[in-house]
Amino acid sequence: MPVQESHASSPATADNGGENQDEAWVWAQIKAEARRDAESEPALASYLYSTVISHSSLARSISFHLGNKLCSSTLLSTLLYDLFLNTFSSDPSLRSATVADLRAARCRDPACMSFSQCLLNYKGFLALQAHRVAHKLWVQNRKPIAFALHSRVSDVFSVDIHPAARIGKGVLLDHATGLVIGETAVVGNNVSILHHVTLGGTGKAGGDRHPKIGDGVLIGAGATILGNVRIGEGAKIGSGTVVLIEVPPWTTAVGNPARLVGGKEQPTVHE
Amino acid sequence: MPVQESHASSPATADNGGENQDEAWVWAQIKAEARRDAESEPALASYLYSTVISHSSLARSISFHLGNKLCSSTLLSTLLYDLFLNTFSSDPSLRSATVADLRAARCRDPACMSFSQCLLNYKGFLALQAHRVAHKLWVQNRKPIAFALHSRVSDVFSVDIHPAARIGKGVLLDHATGLVIGETAVVGNNVSILHHVTLGGTGKAGGDRHPKIGDGVLIGAGATILGNVRIGEGAKIGSGTVVLIEVPPWTTAVGNPARLVGGKEQPTVHE
Amino acid sequence: MPVQESHASSPATADNGGENQDEAWVWAQIKAEARRDAESEPALASYLYSTVISHSSLARSISFHLGNKLCSSTLLSTLLYDLFLNTFSSDPSLRSATVADLRAARCRDPACMSFSQCLLNYKGFLALQAHRVAHKLWVQNRKPIAFALHSRVSDVFSVDIHPAARIGKGVLLDHATGLVIGETAVVGNNVSILHHVTLGGTGKAGGDRHPKIGDGVLIGAGATILGNVRIGEGAKIGSGTVVLIEVPPWTTAVGNPARLVGGKEQPTVHE
Repeated sequence: MPVQESHASSPATADNGGENQDEAWVWAQIKAEARRDAESEPALASYLYSTVISHSSLARSISFHLGNKLCSSTLLSTLLYDLFLNTFSSDPSLRSATVADLRAARCRDPACMSFSQCLLNYKGFLALQAHRVAHKLWVQNRKPIAFALHSRVSDVFSVDIHPAARIGKGVLLDHATGLVIGETAVVGNNVSILHHVTLGGTGKAGGDRHPKIGDGVLIGAGATILGNVRIGEGAKIGSGTVVLIEVPPWTTAVGNPARLVGGKEQPTVHE
Repeated sequence: MPVQESHASSPATADNGGENQDEAWVWAQIKAEARRDAESEPALASYLYSTVISHSSLARSISFHLGNKLCSSTLLSTLLYDLFLNTFSSDPSLRSATVADLRAARCRDPACMSFSQCLLNYKGFLALQAHRVAHKLWVQNRKPIAFALHSRVSDVFSVDIHPAARIGKGVLLDHATGLVIGETAVVGNNVSILHHVTLGGTGKAGGDRHPKIGDGVLIGAGATILGNVRIGEGAKIGSGTVVLIEVPPWTTAVGNPARLVGGKEQPTVHE
Repeated sequence: MPVQESHASSPATADNGGENQDEAWVWAQIKAEARRDAESEPALASYLYSTVISHSSLARSISFHLGNKLCSSTLLSTLLYDLFLNTFSSDPSLRSATVADLRAARCRDPACMSFSQCLLNYKGFLALQAHRVAHKLWVQNRKPIAFALHSRVSDVFSVDIHPAARIGKGVLLDHATGLVIGETAVVGNNVSILHHVTLGGTGKAGGDRHPKIGDGVLIGAGATILGNVRIGEGAKIGSGTVVLIEVPPWTTAVGNPARLVGGKEQPTVHE
């Protein structure tokens, strides 16, 4: 699977200044891509100009794009734009998560040909950015507006992530339609989740009742993981698997009900 | 699972006057909740005012909200508003089903914190209310407009309930994305259905070809029930189960293909 | 399963003139149906007039309808209308595929009562027509606009067909919500695919990594077919099946993981 762009080619470093530089570098790439596409496809020029080229930052472009996608006749795009932009502006960790998510799509999805393609077209990426804002509002105890955002994302993208769910950085929600992530779920860094995946409850318990997904896990299309179970770092959950049990790190689970294959002695490497 | 509000706390009784009082009581709760939220979150005040607070009845509020969500540039919100309101106004049993559905979400979904959250944000609840109207139009032999509503609900909410399907009261469509219910399906009272569930045909028969779901059944995420089979009262269908057979009352079916566990001698109680 | 309209009743023949006549005949049916519905349901008259009755051809009606459904505040309906109409106008094979898809819904979906019902309301049909245009743009190396269409179809219909995927004629995408078809997938003629189906990659390979579906295959709800595997002509894939292997012609695959039943000696006939 081609990793089309490596960290080495950007000036990113681990400190905050590096993160700012990384954001600036990715944003410059996106603007260059949008300008190239606007030139080659005049029918898209106005759309690309208003959505990308006219903006002075990645946060402004995403806020504008999400505001347009999620607005309705009663929830105006201007209100949503302000809400997104204020939240992104006040929290650099949100913006670095966005950049990590863009890199995840470029590196881990072989169908992703450019950063701007992800920014403009990937409902999983866009739903995740809206969730990051909804989660921030949730933590600030602004629950009614967090739920309103959650509802619009579920209507528009068919992606249903409870605003309380905690999601790491560098996460790829591939295809994304039908994804459901429950209130007390936690998803680690560099996780890849395909469409129709459920991180749900068993219906038998209240409180902390949803899965905990370790770093680097890959969850295949249509997999259902139920209950407060831990999926260990680097585990792989096969398509259509129904998981009600803990899955150890670097182990693969397949089938309905899930059975474990592989493991530490036979590590499987994600692409 | 916390039942946050019991029938004992409302003045509901079994007769029609009681249903009217129950509707009035729930509507008063919803207005109070919306006023509280508008005060704590000024960004939502205009939305809450136009969608809830400004209306004189639950039926008007739902009709306005559904009209806005389901309208398009060729199917105007005013037309849809009139259609919903006329239908709700002419049939008290529709309105009592709506109230029972609101109570089902409050009682059976631990993530549901208020009636207004359900009314405003739950696509499963909203899709079901639109279906109730579409079904009424279907029964009145207004099939083209019933199909138009069905299509908009499938586009906007990704919930696909054939307008001929008969659905009981107190039904919870939790998460709801991807739900498909076929033309000759029947769903009883107090049923809970998770997302990605299919009540479909086998493709081998025409006519009466879809499942019959008894009262109080719970159907887990991604379960597929095919053919004119009966799922008995109180049965539970596990997530990802593929059911082509009859499931007796108070029995649990799991797996692909489904096998039965539990039963009358080992009853499982739903939460 | 009632085949409500046979080729014998239309003047279609195999040559191009026949295809034009076939298109004209189907279009005349659609207009007559829309006029009848507008008369019986005045609330729909304006919608039916603007979407169907006012247009001089099937291509114009579909282009108008898709333009309205897929537009946004930044991708205008007029731009999309021109894009669809120009593409349909320039390629008669696109228009004959559309007619074959309409016939597939009438013949193979027992819930489809008229051509106009399919044209107006079936998200699977509409998503497929938009895909046919996106694929044409992709082949012309207009990738950014092909991706923009793909993204709008995924948002609006929850149908995610990569613009590079090659899809035959007379294809029925029934219910359609959650369908995902990957970049290098190929789907033959007269295939029926239910909702929540994935024709995806295994994540282990780049390049040509998606399934090849033969003519006349039936794929049940929630089936997942992964990798560059061949599903032979006339095969049936049961609901919820997870297929990672080749399936021979006229064979049925069921279960997770898939096992094969039936075969050439026990052919199963699709309805």
